Amino acid sequence: MVPAAGMEDVVSLAKRRGFVFPSSEIYGGLASCWDYGPLGAELKRNVQGLWWRSMTRRGDVEGLDSSILMHPDVWRASGHAEGFNDSMADCRRCKGRFRADALPPGGACPGCGAEGSLTEPRDFNLMLATRLGPVDDPASAVFLRPETAQGIFVNFLNVQETMRRRLPFGIAQVGKAFRNEISPGNFTFRTREFEQMEMQYFTAPGDDREAMEEWRERRWRWHLDNGVAEGNLRLREHGPDELAHYAAAAVDIEYRFPHGWGEMEGVHRRTDFDLGRHQERSGKRLAYVDQLDGNRRFLPHVVETSVGLDRCVLALLCDALRTEGAGGGEGRTVLGLSPRVAPVKAAVLPLSRKDALTGLARRAFEDVRSRWRAEFDEAGSIGRRYRRQDEIGTPLCVTIDFDSLDDGAATVRDRDTMAQERVPLEGLVARLEERLGPGAAP
Amino acid sequence: MVPAAGMEDVVSLAKRRGFVFPSSEIYGGLASCWDYGPLGAELKRNVQGLWWRSMTRRGDVEGLDSSILMHPDVWRASGHAEGFNDSMADCRRCKGRFRADALPPGGACPGCGAEGSLTEPRDFNLMLATRLGPVDDPASAVFLRPETAQGIFVNFLNVQETMRRRLPFGIAQVGKAFRNEISPGNFTFRTREFEQMEMQYFTAPGDDREAMEEWRERRWRWHLDNGVAEGNLRLREHGPDELAHYAAAAVDIEYRFPHGWGEMEGVHRRTDFDLGRHQERSGKRLAYVDQLDGNRRFLPHVVETSVGLDRCVLALLCDALRTEGAGGGEGRTVLGLSPRVAPVKAAVLPLSRKDALTGLARRAFEDVRSRWRAEFDEAGSIGRRYRRQDEIGTPLCVTIDFDSLDDGAATVRDRDTMAQERVPLEGLVARLEERLGPGAAP
Repeated sequence: MVPAAGMEDVVSLAKRRGFVFPSSEIYGGLASCWDYGPLGAELKRNVQGLWWRSMTRRGDVEGLDSSILMHPDVWRASGHAEGFNDSMADCRRCKGRFRADALPPGGACPGCGAEGSLTEPRDFNLMLATRLGPVDDPASAVFLRPETAQGIFVNFLNVQETMRRRLPFGIAQVGKAFRNEISPGNFTFRTREFEQMEMQYFTAPGDDREAMEEWRERRWRWHLDNGVAEGNLRLREHGPDELAHYAAAAVDIEYRFPHGWGEMEGVHRRTDFDLGRHQERSGKRLAYVDQLDGNRRFLPHVVETSVGLDRCVLALLCDALRTEGAGGGEGRTVLGLSPRVAPVKAAVLPLSRKDALTGLARRAFEDVRSRWRAEFDEAGSIGRRYRRQDEIGTPLCVTIDFDSLDDGAATVRDRDTMAQERVPLEGLVARLEERLGPGAAP
Repeated sequence: MVPAAGMEDVVSLAKRRGFVFPSSEIYGGLASCWDYGPLGAELKRNVQGLWWRSMTRRGDVEGLDSSILMHPDVWRASGHAEGFNDSMADCRRCKGRFRADALPPGGACPGCGAEGSLTEPRDFNLMLATRLGPVDDPASAVFLRPETAQGIFVNFLNVQETMRRRLPFGIAQVGKAFRNEISPGNFTFRTREFEQMEMQYFTAPGDDREAMEEWRERRWRWHLDNGVAEGNLRLREHGPDELAHYAAAAVDIEYRFPHGWGEMEGVHRRTDFDLGRHQERSGKRLAYVDQLDGNRRFLPHVVETSVGLDRCVLALLCDALRTEGAGGGEGRTVLGLSPRVAPVKAAVLPLSRKDALTGLARRAFEDVRSRWRAEFDEAGSIGRRYRRQDEIGTPLCVTIDFDSLDDGAATVRDRDTMAQERVPLEGLVARLEERLGPGAAP
C-alpha cells in the first residue's frame, strides 16, 4: 500500500490545521527546526504516552529521564567524540561544504560546478557543543546528547540497585537529542533537534539473541497497533559492512515515506560494548552480580530499541492522509488516524446557533470532554464543520439537531464511513467508549 | 507548617529510592545536572500530565510544543540577547568569577581572599550558545532557549488562525530550557538544564488585570490539589524596582523549601511587550483582528503563568517526606505523596513465596496494574516491604495472606494511617478506585 498523499500535501495540511509549523517562522524559519502546533503536540503526546506505557507497564522495564547535558567523558567512552563524524569536503570557490560520500565522481563542485575546487575531505563531528559555567574556555565544553541511550548506560547500576532488579530487565526513556546533520530535510524526517524513545534491555550474555527477536516482533506490532498500514512497513537487516561500531546485529523497521523507504526504528544488539567502555573509562565497576548463580559477576549484554518520535508522527500523518472522490467536484480530505492517537477524539456540533440547541449540545459536550479530548464547534455550515473534523482526524462527530429536542438523541457520524447512527444522549458516553476506548480523566 | 525533612534527607532518599541521581555520576557528575530515576521520572510525568490537562482541557487553552533551538532574532527581539546578563567580576589571582551583586564590600576576593585582585564587573550573558550547520563561524551561532515563552509568542498568530480562536485564549507548553546559572545549587532547585511549564493567556488590552487575578487563584489551587500543604505556600508580589523588563506586574507563588522560601511559579502581566517587539523586529503584523468589534486590530495583552517542573517535584518531595516515631527505636520514613502524583499507586504483596499465595497475588496484581501503575513484591519480610512502599510514597498496599486462600479477600493497608481493611478480591479494583481515582488504561 503506497501512501496516497505526497509530502507536500502532508506539509500543507500540517501547517493549515495546526499540526506542525516552521520554527521561528516570522523570522524566516530556522533550518530544519519545527514546532508542533496544538493538534501536533497532542498527537505527539499520544504516541509518546503509548510508547511509555507499552514499556513501563510491562513489568520488566523501568523508566528514566536523564539530562541532555552530560559529562564530556560519556562521549569519549561511547565513541561519539572520536567516531561520530561525517567526512566533508569544502569548495574553495563557493565555500559550500559537502558530504564526501555524496560527491559525484569527477571532482566538480556540486554547488557551483567548478572543477578542482574541492578540498580533501575532513572529519566533521555531528555533536552540538556548548559551554557551561562562567569561564569561556575549551575545558568547559559540553555536548548536547546525540542519543538518549548513553543516559541509560551510565545509570545502569543506579537503576538496577535502587529498583532491586534481576536480569533480564530494561530501562526506557524519551527525550530530545541533537545532531548537526549536514543534510537535514524531508520535513520532520531528518532534523537537527529531534525526540527519541529508546529502551535498553539488559540480559545475560547469550540471552540477547532471543531477546532481540522478541523485541523486534513487539516493536513491529506496536506500529501496527497505532494504525500504520502493514504494507507500508518493512524490516531491513543491516549487512556486516554497515553495522554501527557498537552493534553486533541490527534491523531497521522502515516506513514507506513519500520520499522513499526510511528508518523509523532500529533494533540493535549492542553486546556489552557500552557498559564495557564506560567501565574502562570511569574506573567504576559496572558488573551485574548474579545472586542466583553464586554471585557471578559479568557485564550484561544489551538489546536496544530506538525509535524517532518525530518520525512516528510523520509516518502516522503520511499514512492517514487521503483525498476521496477528488475526480468529480470537490474531494473530501480525510486524516484517518486511529482513535488511539487522534488528537481530538470527538466533536460536538449543534446544527444551528439556536439557544435550545446550544444548551443541549453544551451539556453533551461536557459529558464527552470529561472523558476524552473533544471540541465544541458551532461556527459555519455543518458540512464545513464535518470537513474540518475529517481533516484533523477526529473519529466521531456528535451532531445535535432539532429532533434532538424531541427525542433526546444525537447523530454520531463516523469519519471513515460517514455512516450516521442515532444515539440517545444518556447512552452517548457508553457508545463513544465502545468506539474510542475508555479515555482518561481530565 | 515547616517541612519535617532537611534537604539532605530529601537528597538521600531521592538517591536511595530511585527518584533522582546525579547526572553522569560514574564520571563524578556534571555540575548541577540531575537525572530522574524510575520513580522520579514517573512522579515528574504525573505532575506534568496534571498541568497539561489542567490547561488544555479547560477549553480556552491550546497546547504547543516548540523547538529548543530558535532563530537568533527571537532573542534579540525578546531582550535576552542584550539584557539577560549577570554582572560578574574576575579574580586576577585565583581566576574565580563572582556575581557582582554578591561581592562583599571591601573588595577582597571571596575565593582566595586576595585584596584588590578583582576586575571591574562585566556583563555575562546567561544563554547557552551552540553552532548549527557545517560552517563553524560566529554567524551560525544559535542559543538554547532560556525560557519556553518565546516559542509561544512567535507562534501566536499560527495558533490563533489555525485553531480559529477568539480572545481571550491561552497557549501552553512544557519543555526544557537552559540558563548558564553562575550559582546553581540546592539540589534540583537551581540548575542549568530545567523544565518549564508555561502558559501565555492573550486578552484584549485592559482585560489582563482581571485575568491575572483569576490565573493566580487557579495556579495557587493547582498546587494545593497536588497535595502541597497550604502553610508551606505563600504569595509574594514584586515591587516596582524588581520587575523584569517585560512585566507590568508580577507575583510569585513561593514554597518553603528546606533552604528557605523560593519561587515555584510566577504569574506575570507581560502587556503587549513581547508581541510588540517581535512585530517590530520581524516586520510581520502580529495584530489580532477582532471580528466582533468592526475588525479592530490590536496587539493582545498577556498574562503568563510560568512554573518550574523540577521545582514542583522538589517541593512535593520536601513536603511529603517525614519520619515518624524517630524518638524511640527505629523511625518510620514516609513519603506522603498524594495519590494524584504518587509514582506507584498500589503494591501487591504475597505474605510468603508459597506457590498458592503467589498465584493468587499475581492474579490480583494483573487486575490492579490494568488500571494503575503498580508493583509486585515478594522479596523479604512483609515489614521491610511495607517500609519500602512507605518510602516511595505508595498510598496502598494489598497483602495476600493465607486467609486469602479461604476467604478470597486481601488486606488493604493505608500508607498514612497504617489502618488495615479486609477487601474481597472481586471488589478490589472498585475499592482501590474509591481511594485512588479512576486510573488510566495501560
